[in-house]
This record gives sequence, structure tokens and C-alpha cells, in this order.
Amino acid sequence: MFETAELGRNIERDAYDKRVPELRVELLAAQAKLLNEARSSVVVVIAGVDGAGKGDTVNTLHEWMDSHYLETHAFGTPSEEERERPAMWRFWRELPVKGRIGIYFGSWYTQPIIRRVYGQADEAEFLGELRHIQDFERMLAEDGTLVLKYWFHLSKKEQKKRLKKLSSDPDRAWRVGPTDREHSKHYDDFVVTCERALRETSTGMAPWQVIEGTHRRYREVAVAEHLLAALRGHLEAHSAPPAVEAPRIEWGTQPTVLSALDMQVKLPEDEYEAALSHLQARLNEISRDAQATGATLLCVFEGPDAAGKGGAIRRVTRALDARAYRVISTAAPSDEEKARHYLWRFWRHIPRAGRVAIFDRSWYGRVLVERVEGYASPAEWRRAYNEISEFEELLIERGVGLVKFWLHIDLDEQAKRFEERKNTPYKEFKITAEDYRNRDHWTEYEQVVHEMVERTSTYQAPWTLIAANDKRHARIEVLKVLCASFENCVARARKREK
Amino acid sequence: MFETAELGRNIERDAYDKRVPELRVELLAAQAKLLNEARSSVVVVIAGVDGAGKGDTVNTLHEWMDSHYLETHAFGTPSEEERERPAMWRFWRELPVKGRIGIYFGSWYTQPIIRRVYGQADEAEFLGELRHIQDFERMLAEDGTLVLKYWFHLSKKEQKKRLKKLSSDPDRAWRVGPTDREHSKHYDDFVVTCERALRETSTGMAPWQVIEGTHRRYREVAVAEHLLAALRGHLEAHSAPPAVEAPRIEWGTQPTVLSALDMQVKLPEDEYEAALSHLQARLNEISRDAQATGATLLCVFEGPDAAGKGGAIRRVTRALDARAYRVISTAAPSDEEKARHYLWRFWRHIPRAGRVAIFDRSWYGRVLVERVEGYASPAEWRRAYNEISEFEELLIERGVGLVKFWLHIDLDEQAKRFEERKNTPYKEFKITAEDYRNRDHWTEYEQVVHEMVERTSTYQAPWTLIAANDKRHARIEVLKVLCASFENCVARARKREK
Repeated sequence: MFETAELGRNIERDAYDKRVPELRVELLAAQAKLLNEARSSVVVVIAGVDGAGKGDTVNTLHEWMDSHYLETHAFGTPSEEERERPAMWRFWRELPVKGRIGIYFGSWYTQPIIRRVYGQADEAEFLGELRHIQDFERMLAEDGTLVLKYWFHLSKKEQKKRLKKLSSDPDRAWRVGPTDREHSKHYDDFVVTCERALRETSTGMAPWQVIEGTHRRYREVAVAEHLLAALRGHLEAHSAPPAVEAPRIEWGTQPTVLSALDMQVKLPEDEYEAALSHLQARLNEISRDAQATGATLLCVFEGPDAAGKGGAIRRVTRALDARAYRVISTAAPSDEEKARHYLWRFWRHIPRAGRVAIFDRSWYGRVLVERVEGYASPAEWRRAYNEISEFEELLIERGVGLVKFWLHIDLDEQAKRFEERKNTPYKEFKITAEDYRNRDHWTEYEQVVHEMVERTSTYQAPWTLIAANDKRHARIEVLKVLCASFENCVARARKREK
Repeated sequence: MFETAELGRNIERDAYDKRVPELRVELLAAQAKLLNEARSSVVVVIAGVDGAGKGDTVNTLHEWMDSHYLETHAFGTPSEEERERPAMWRFWRELPVKGRIGIYFGSWYTQPIIRRVYGQADEAEFLGELRHIQDFERMLAEDGTLVLKYWFHLSKKEQKKRLKKLSSDPDRAWRVGPTDREHSKHYDDFVVTCERALRETSTGMAPWQVIEGTHRRYREVAVAEHLLAALRGHLEAHSAPPAVEAPRIEWGTQPTVLSALDMQVKLPEDEYEAALSHLQARLNEISRDAQATGATLLCVFEGPDAAGKGGAIRRVTRALDARAYRVISTAAPSDEEKARHYLWRFWRHIPRAGRVAIFDRSWYGRVLVERVEGYASPAEWRRAYNEISEFEELLIERGVGLVKFWLHIDLDEQAKRFEERKNTPYKEFKITAEDYRNRDHWTEYEQVVHEMVERTSTYQAPWTLIAANDKRHARIEVLKVLCASFENCVARARKREK
């Protein structure tokens, strides 16, 4: 596939000098429009053969465009904090906000390709990683991000010539590093692996552009012209009116996973006290093993208002070392969060190895409250199921344990609790008008939860639905499930260690 | 000093049961007011003897207050990414936004005290660390943050009794960890060191409260009552009208550090080209040594509009490995940034060891544009000199090299460049009405820069003022100074390694 980029493509100096000033003006205008509209961001991946002028082209783009709104991110060997999380975490950290362009120089492609060329990953692993990349880029594209990928190519002969020429100039020899030399020895292996990578990941939403890197003027103009055309097309498409909304589904009267719960179940106080202190002791023990083995646990708590999420969480955290856990209350997003993909604000809270993160409401808000209230469009919450699955899969592959609780109460119990809150001065603050309003959506929520469980309860990260009309019963169930899942997670971590 | 907390203070159950419901209501009301006003944040440090009920009290606070706006941060051994930066970096990362309360359980006091007790730090180092803590807390307090510090005490006898009792209960033995036992052997050393720490850091703005930890009801209520009173006092003080503004200084006609620059200096093109490629090669070599030794460099670029900061920065970055540097353009702060101390947004960009961070405008904006335009009050920009010095000192102590450039042009040159920009289509975007407006403040800026240099040019982080009417001259000067400073920084890193 790379033959098309070994033709000696070039641009005459005159044509270059004539075109570049116009091109700069046009690029700046498109960039300004992107910034002013601030409706989407642009991700530009720069990859390819060493010596093909990738770095020079990035510098040129910074010179031609407004570099205040152009961020270049380059990635070397992952740090300890990065290695303790899924490989994609470091890229999520550095996604551009709406209105800006992020250039990724050394991207999510680098490590998979290198590991494959040097035999540290087999073909199946490599393809698995490419699939994650596809999912990641699709997620960005569907969220409105323009994803552009440029592959700089240079023939083997040309690369040798270039490295030799640079090495012999004392003031420019530094441009050739030891890894460049090492990689150039594996030129053919790289071609095979990269071809595969490009074919697998050249999707309709995020196609690769192969750029011949032999001549400076050509590669600069080729990238800049393509970037300009893509940006313009993207801005136009985005100025179009939004698609018509799909009609709402009429809910039937069939039973749901929630109506199947036995809401009458109760636990006597003495049994509760005994079980509580026993389970907390057990949980503490496991959590210390987890810290030692680097086993990470993520717990999600969802449920109607007043279902007792906070109380259950406190029974859990009492058993944990304060240094080892973090409770993340999911409230309205900040502007930094709003300016990115909705999963970004959860990625930023992925804990280090050996820690516990407890989410009091979570990314499932997308398919619950955001869906019911219409904050997310049907297209958005529909694709969220896949996005969430992919997100959780990356965590699980990294060895993270995932426990998801839905604490359920019925309408009567909720009314009772609201009443109690209203009459207890220090609980009154928990009640808002919105809580009462949510009661009108009760049936819809039941259906929506049913669908959520259907779509996102997997073998490795199942939903645990708990009847929580009796707080004591619910708390003990939470602790039991947590202990069991956490133990599994530690056992898997031990296995990986061996 | 701890005798006052060995008296067996307690509260009867009846009194406790009567007071607590009221206390909760009052705490919630104060917390709600803090959140609604969102004008300042609260930092609560919980420290003291093991077994004195710190963890239980934190849990109680979470139960009594609205835990959605109460974040508890606990800190264990620093991670690799944390160790590569000044010790305070990890705490800056976790400061609460305005309207919220952050509880620090295991805080900036832990490591200095432990290092001192176990003899890893001598008295001078320990006092140095305490001074940094004082500065840090003063900085927060002056920014409007309420800083509360509770020291939980327990007599030696009582601690032994407690650890023994817990250890003998199989369901509660987990509460006593190996470090608790280790620390309890050093009880007397801890008392001496902690006394010192408390005395040195009990300032008017952030005094310590010693809490007797023997009885649960007493310690809970003592902390909660104090927190409530402090919060109320703070909210009232903050509702008061701001202090009267000090009158503006009349600028004289005395020479400034800027008027002393020779603005006529020029560099011929051929000399420039030769020097440029030579210096870039040298810079690249040093930067690779820096990556190997973990030497970190921070470069600050300030100067009037059109002084050529961007062009100079590009000449620097061309010589660097894209993975090793980051250019940070300082623009308007995001809402997450605005909700914290103004230095927070620079702390978050402190690079890892071995990297270069280039700030295109920086924290000096506080004493430049924010001062001139009145965005910062006189009290704010006046204390900023000390805050900046303290910030830079922490970096320097950690071995970070700091280079600060003021690129200067005169009014005529600026007018010429504005004109040129206006007439070059792809440069026009760089000109705004504000740029012209800034010209009216030219004399004031000269005085303000003079004062900034006077207050913040130190032996270890001097300002380099460069006449930049000739771009070639300015770029070469920047590269020269950068190479020399960077070399020094690498040499210091090598020394530390030995």
C-alpha cells in the first residue's frame, strides 16, 4: 500500500511560495471559526516512518496556524501512574476541548506497533489493541470530534540516505537518535505491521492519509491542504440543523428486572450488627491484600433518590484505609468537563493500582437521567451503551474489578423517606423540588433501568440489583457482593503477578 | 503543650443526644451558605496521634454534613509522578474549589514529621519544611480560604490501652496496622517533633486546635462545634464590604531596567544562521542529558504584544524532542481554574522530571496585566510577589531550573509590527483592539516591569531582559541563556545523583 508514496512527489518553489500565504490565511480562518463556534474539537494524529519529516511538519503547522489553540502532545514511555491504568488513560487525559486542535505526535498507535514489531505482542493481542483504537476513534468521531490521521512514508532507500546525511552534519546529527537507527534496521517488519494497522483502523469516520515524506514542500502543503479541506467540510456539516428526533418508545406493562425484586425482604437489627462488623473486618482485610497486589476496584452506586446510596457507601468506607479510597459524587459537569466527551470526567477519576474508587452516581447517568430528561439526544444515549461497554472492557482488561449496584426502593418507601427527611431538620436539605418531579417519571425509569441492565450487565461486570426498602438488608448485601468481587479481583491480580 | 488534652474530657450521652441534631442542622446551614456564596473554600487538616479517633471523626463529619460537597483526601507514599515534582504539588492538585470543604487526612504535615522522627531529616531541614507549610497555608488564607487544623491527642497510656483493646477483638483488630504499632514505639519522639511542628505552624491565619481524643462523643462534638463557629465567623467576615483601595502610585521619570536596554543592537543574517544551528544542536544535546539525569527546566516568556515571543519559542522547540517539552499558552482561566488560587493553574502544568515546560505568558500576569487592568486588587498583586517567590523557591529546591525572559521592544517597533501584521493576511488575526489599547499603558507597564524585576529577579531565578527590536538578536540571546541555564541545571542534577 505504500508504493503510492514512493513516487518522488514534489512541489515547485514558485508554486509553493504562491500558495502558502493564501493557505495560511485560509487555515487561520477555519481555525477561528472552529474556535468561535466551540462545538467540536479536532484530533490530528501524526505518525509514520522515522526521518519522513513528521516533526518538521508539526512545527510548520504551529507556524502557519494560531498556536495558542493548537496543542501538540507527544508520548514517550508510560510513567508509573500511567502504567497502573488502562493504556488509553494517558490519551484521554490530553484530549482537546471544543474549539481546539490537538496534534498527537507519538499516539495510541506507537506502543501497539512497536510491541508487535519487536515480538512483545502476538498477532491476536495486536488486533485486540487495534480494535480498541477503532472504538476510541469512533467514540470521538460520534461525539463530533474531527479525527485526522496522517501517515508519513519514506522508502527504505530514502530513509537510509536521509539518516546518513543527517548523521554526517555535526550541527544536525542530533536529529538522528539511537532508536531511529534501531528502528531503521527493522524497516521491513515495520512496513508489514504498519500496513496492517492502517488497514484495520482506516475507518469511514477516521481514515488514514498516506503522505509521501521525501520532499519538504510537498508534505507540508499536502498535510495543510488536507487539514484545511477536512476542517471546512467538518465546519459546514456541523452548521447543518440537527437530525430529526426519533419517536419515543411506548412502554408496555411487562415485568422488568426491578419488578422481579422481592421488596419485602428484611434483616433484624441484631443479625445486622453482627454481619456488619464481620463483613467490614473481611472487607478491610481484602482491601489490604488489594493494596499489596495492586488490585483496583471501581464501585458504582445508582438508584432512585433516597434509596440509601450514601448510607451504604459510608458503611463501605468505614472499613477502608482513607488513603486507599475515593468517593466521587457525580454532579453537574464543570465547563472543562462539558467541553469534552462525556466519559472524560470519569476517565480522570480512574484510580491508581491498589485503590478503590466509589462512584455515587456515574457514567450511567447518560442512559438514566440524561436520557429521561432529554439532556442527551436519542443518538447520544443509544450509542452510550457501546461506549460504556468499551470503557468498562478496557478497565477489566487492565485487571480493574468493577461492581455495579442498583439500590431499589418502591414509590411508597420513597414517599415515606421524603416525609421523614422533611420532618428531620438535618435531613431536610436532601429534598428538592426536583426529587418530587422525578417521581412522575417512575415508570419510565423502571423501563430505562431494565434496558440499561439488559445492555450493560456483563459476565465480568454484572449489575447487582438490591431491594433496599430495608436499609439494613441493602447494606449487608452491598458489603457481601463487594467482598466477593474484591476477592476475585485480588485473586486475578495475584495470578497476573506470577 | 499536650497536657491540656489528657484530662479525660467527655460529654454525657444525654447532652450529646440533645445537641447533635441541632448541631447537624446548623452545620448544614453553614455549609449551604458556603456553597451558595461560592466565594471561598475550606481546608480542614485532621492530624494527630494514632488511635485518637481521627478516622472516626472524619466519618462522622461526612454523616453530619452534606457529603457531596465535602471531599476527604488522604495521602500515602508519594507516587513516581509526585516524587518528580516539589512535595507540595500533590496537595495543590487536590485543593477544593470555592464553596466546598476539603478534609486532609494525612496532609502536608505527615511526611516532614515522620522523616524527622525517624532521623531521615535533620532539624534544619525540618524547620525549612515547616516554613514552606506556613507559606502555603498563609497563601491559602490570604486568598480567602478558611484553614482549620485539628490535632487529635491521646496520652501514651491511653494509646497503649486502645491498641491493645482493638487488637484483641478479631472483628476490629484490622484497625491496628503495623505502622500504628511501629509509631507507638516512638511515642515520645513523636510528641517532641509534633510539639515543634504545632508551635511553628500555629499562625494567626491558621491556628491549630488540640482535641482530646480519649472519648468519642467529646471529640466529635468539639471538632464539629469549632468547625461550625469558624465557618460562621468566616462567612460573616466574607459578607463584609471589601477594604478601601489604596491610592495609585504616581510614576516618576526615573530610568527603569527597560530604559537601560540598548534597543539598537542588531545581528546580521549570516551570523544569525550559523549561531542558530549551532545553538540548537547544543540545546538538543543538553536536553538529552537532561532527560537522562531527570533535570527539569521551566522557561517563562513575557513581553509586550508583538515582541516575538512565539517566534523565539519556536526556535527553541525545534531543537527539542517533542516528547520532552510542552508549550503552555496562558489565556483566560477556565471555571475550574477560577474557582481556585490563581497559582493552581500553573501548578497543574509543572512537568515531570527531565522535561521542559515553556510558558507563553505565565504567573507573572498577576503583577503585570492583572495589576494594570485592575483584575487583581492591590492587596492581591502586592502579596503575589511573595507567593511567586515561594512558588519558585519550591521548584528550585526540587532541582527545577527556571529561566525567565522579558523580550522588549519599543513603541515605534511595536507600531511597525502591528502595521506589518495588518498588511500580512495570515498575521492579521494576531491583532486585536486590545493590543492597541495596551499601548496607552506603555509607561505604566515599564514601571510595573521594573518593580517585577526588582521583586522577583533572584540569584537562582534571575530575569533576563532582552532587547528584541531585532528578532534575530533576541532569538540568539534566548538560545544562549537557555543553553547556559539548562547546562547548570543538568550539572546540579548530576551532583544530586551522586
